[in-house]
Amino acid sequence: MAQVHEFKMEMTCEGCAGAAQRVLGKLEGVEKVETSVEKQQVLVTSALPKDTLLETLQKTGKTCSYVGTQ
Amino acid sequence: MAQVHEFKMEMTCEGCAGAAQRVLGKLEGVEKVETSVEKQQVLVTSALPKDTLLETLQKTGKTCSYVGTQ
Repeated sequence: MAQVHEFKMEMTCEGCAGAAQRVLGKLEGVEKVETSVEKQQVLVTSALPKDTLLETLQKTGKTCSYVGTQ
Repeated sequence: MAQVHEFKMEMTCEGCAGAAQRVLGKLEGVEKVETSVEKQQVLVTSALPKDTLLETLQKTGKTCSYVGTQ
C-alpha cells in the first residue's frame, strides 16, 4: 500500500527541486512527488521501501535524510 | 592518460554545482572537477571514458550533455 514518506533535502533553488522530481519520477512505483524548497522537504507517495527512495534521492548528490511517514 | 572533458549542464545555483562536484568526487579516477554556473559548464579531468562521466552527471537529475575535450 502506498504511503507518504517525508524526506529532508538540501535544496537551494527550483532547479534542485526539479532534480529530485526527475530522479524519483523515473522510478517505477512512485505515485506522487511534492517538493518544497522553503521547507527543504520532499514528500513521496509510494509503496516502495523508504530505503529505495532515499538511495534514489541521494544519487542527486544532495544531502538528504529520512524523516518518517505522514 | 587524463583528459579534460567539457560537459554542458543545467545549473541554476551553487547547490546544483555542488551536486555535480559531489557525484563526480565519489568516482575513482576523477582528478579534478571545475564547475561554472554562469557558463553552465562542468570540466572534468579524468582518464575515465566520457560516457562514464556523463552517466554519473546524469544521475543528478540535471539535463547535461557532452561537449568535447579541451
